[in-house]
Amino acid sequence: MTDTIVALATPNSQSALGIIRVSGNRVLEFCEKTCGTPCPIPRYAHLTKYTSLEQDILDQVILVYYEKGKSFTAESCMELSCHGNPFILEGILNDLIQRGCRLANPGEFTYRAFQNGKIDLTQAEAVADLIGAKNKQALLLANKNLEGNLSTKIGILQTSILRQHSNIEAFIDFPEDDIGEEKTAHIITNLQGICSELSDLIEIGKKTDAFNRNLKVVLVGPPNAGKSSIFNKIIGVDRAIIDQEPGTTRDFIDYNINLGKVSIQLYDTAGIRETDQEIERQGIERTYQLIKDADLVLVVLDRSLPYPSIIDHEIKNGIKDKKSILVLNKSDLQNKINILGSYLDEIPKTELSVTKEDSIQDLTNQITSCLLEDSLLDNEFNLSVNLRQSNALSKALVCIQNSIENIKLEETIEFAIPDLKESISLLGEIVGSKDNEDMLDLLFSNFCIGK
Amino acid sequence: MTDTIVALATPNSQSALGIIRVSGNRVLEFCEKTCGTPCPIPRYAHLTKYTSLEQDILDQVILVYYEKGKSFTAESCMELSCHGNPFILEGILNDLIQRGCRLANPGEFTYRAFQNGKIDLTQAEAVADLIGAKNKQALLLANKNLEGNLSTKIGILQTSILRQHSNIEAFIDFPEDDIGEEKTAHIITNLQGICSELSDLIEIGKKTDAFNRNLKVVLVGPPNAGKSSIFNKIIGVDRAIIDQEPGTTRDFIDYNINLGKVSIQLYDTAGIRETDQEIERQGIERTYQLIKDADLVLVVLDRSLPYPSIIDHEIKNGIKDKKSILVLNKSDLQNKINILGSYLDEIPKTELSVTKEDSIQDLTNQITSCLLEDSLLDNEFNLSVNLRQSNALSKALVCIQNSIENIKLEETIEFAIPDLKESISLLGEIVGSKDNEDMLDLLFSNFCIGK
Repeated sequence: MTDTIVALATPNSQSALGIIRVSGNRVLEFCEKTCGTPCPIPRYAHLTKYTSLEQDILDQVILVYYEKGKSFTAESCMELSCHGNPFILEGILNDLIQRGCRLANPGEFTYRAFQNGKIDLTQAEAVADLIGAKNKQALLLANKNLEGNLSTKIGILQTSILRQHSNIEAFIDFPEDDIGEEKTAHIITNLQGICSELSDLIEIGKKTDAFNRNLKVVLVGPPNAGKSSIFNKIIGVDRAIIDQEPGTTRDFIDYNINLGKVSIQLYDTAGIRETDQEIERQGIERTYQLIKDADLVLVVLDRSLPYPSIIDHEIKNGIKDKKSILVLNKSDLQNKINILGSYLDEIPKTELSVTKEDSIQDLTNQITSCLLEDSLLDNEFNLSVNLRQSNALSKALVCIQNSIENIKLEETIEFAIPDLKESISLLGEIVGSKDNEDMLDLLFSNFCIGK
Repeated sequence: MTDTIVALATPNSQSALGIIRVSGNRVLEFCEKTCGTPCPIPRYAHLTKYTSLEQDILDQVILVYYEKGKSFTAESCMELSCHGNPFILEGILNDLIQRGCRLANPGEFTYRAFQNGKIDLTQAEAVADLIGAKNKQALLLANKNLEGNLSTKIGILQTSILRQHSNIEAFIDFPEDDIGEEKTAHIITNLQGICSELSDLIEIGKKTDAFNRNLKVVLVGPPNAGKSSIFNKIIGVDRAIIDQEPGTTRDFIDYNINLGKVSIQLYDTAGIRETDQEIERQGIERTYQLIKDADLVLVVLDRSLPYPSIIDHEIKNGIKDKKSILVLNKSDLQNKINILGSYLDEIPKTELSVTKEDSIQDLTNQITSCLLEDSLLDNEFNLSVNLRQSNALSKALVCIQNSIENIKLEETIEFAIPDLKESISLLGEIVGSKDNEDMLDLLFSNFCIGK
């Protein structure tokens, strides 16, 4: 990892500025050879010119040099702020490559920061989360992890486990100290406390998940219930074709929209009915598939029509164990539907008329609060936990629970030791296990180039 | 112009970094209030956090502050290097606007630099040229103008004219100095020298024009001559539909490609023939229009067929006074064409077979050298002249030529004065006339935001 890497850190299109980042041993040499700045003042914005190997001046640039140990990657770094012309940026990139730089892989700057101990793995993940954050909550949580809140918490837990680990070893080494029962009870209480903290973190993982991705919200119902109209109203764009003809929507369509605290991917689907039309039948198949993956299902019925029998077949199974809302559409018309006694009577419901703006606002509010109902909206989190971290926490939890069982029976107490060791190592993976290359490759490959 | 302006200086999409620029009197206040850096070290990269009015930390940023008088705009400036997330960038932009910044107009930072005397108008235009440069030549020329080469040249010319102006005034004021004829001859020689320098600059304008825009190259010829095949081969993409059926191409299609020293917009057009098909006829109409606007016309004929009579009608008129190349296609087949005695025999010609790679390379080389034949390829320019500048130079030239006529007749010598004054003022417009607001508005409106 001694080669010097280079990447464009800004999008490659015409704009006022574009930034090129370089990190590695040869940076100072490049400061001199490309920018005529052999002894750059660290962190100082030098106005200079970039000269290519062919001695052409490619651009007037601002060069900022970061000393080894004091840069993002902990290596010598330089950042060139150029004019935002793809032709210039590619010219400078190619020139640096000709001079011996290697084009950086996605996330490689952050990877080096991690490998060099500038940040741990939770902070590296927070960098990616920051860049990908889709709403304010996700942003604030990513910033908190970047500050090291999760790492700190993990460190405290590791120390606590290690302490119980030592207590047990002492107990095994000096069994003649006749304070056994009281001591093991104390150890068990402490380990149970740790279990409860691990469970809390896993729970935070579930609750912060809603902030970190686009939640899938699927509109389903019989044909002509008004799904496409509701879809268009929520997204504020005439995206879905609306027609009196039942079965207008065949292929589902989707649209990403930010509802303030959450971002959703909203799906409009083919109306569910018996049909002999092959294209429509395939569309309905896809609707069922979407229900399976949904975070929230909006069942849309036309309130001015009798209860449609078809809705009971597949939807009932689909929305079992799922968040769902019954949307009784066309509330401006006379009510003819009777949902009493049906399974739909059990789920939250809302009446709606697409002709009324308030009506749509009420629905989006209901969508937001339904998606976030477990998220302790008013209680600010101090950190976030992603899926990878949550998996490691769950495994560590199982290890500690096993160790507790073994401690309870005095004769198996020594079997608790490997489990506790394993739990410490699992927590270690959260903040960074530098030898698990496959995991690291996968993790950093999701980063963008230049970061 | 005392308000503080803000803009995103990088494209607004997900990436490693995004830059926000702020310029104006309140910058130091914002350094303190948003980044907790009340006394930033000028030009120093401070790692800090951006806190919004709502006291949310929006991002970890690098803040660089530029002192008044020593920044690009000559005002106090700050640049925030943020994580490249549109949500973060918009959040910070909106926060700065809430705090009283105004979103900058396109080119407003450069406009302020000009208004504050940091750069003159030719340098401001060079900034826009740098960002828009489409090939290496354009880039190098823009950099030379950014260095002030054109401004320097203009300054020298103004001084020379002013000197002759003084000489004439002296001559008018002291007619008793009886050195009339010799003196006026001297003045005329000097002014003729200036005229010749102005003409050279105007000529450079014509010659550097080729580097600064996409030159239009149009493929024309009878149906089935192989225009679309040549088009696809040159651009290296299967863009045009190719078929044995004559008249396959109806709407012209075009493609932008960089041929190294020049960028061209290549057009494939409907084949020219008598037709009663309305759509095809309209296509042919468009072909004639494209020939009119072309920088280079490639007349494509099938070498294995007799000379097509149709080609003489409109093409002959169209390519008169234009650069053109006759492309004799299908050189792998037996030659049956005879162009002897036709007007096409007068223009440069090349034989070609699309099945041979070399053949296409030869053609693109010929296109490049034909487009650049007046451009003194081996003679590096020291500056470039754009259309606006060239127009002012032409007007100044006319003024000086008029003044020479008036000087020649001794009795009208005083009429030379206003013309010389006018020529100095016209040259002044090239480097910057701060009161011509309409011109300035138009000029800077073509810049990108954040520059």
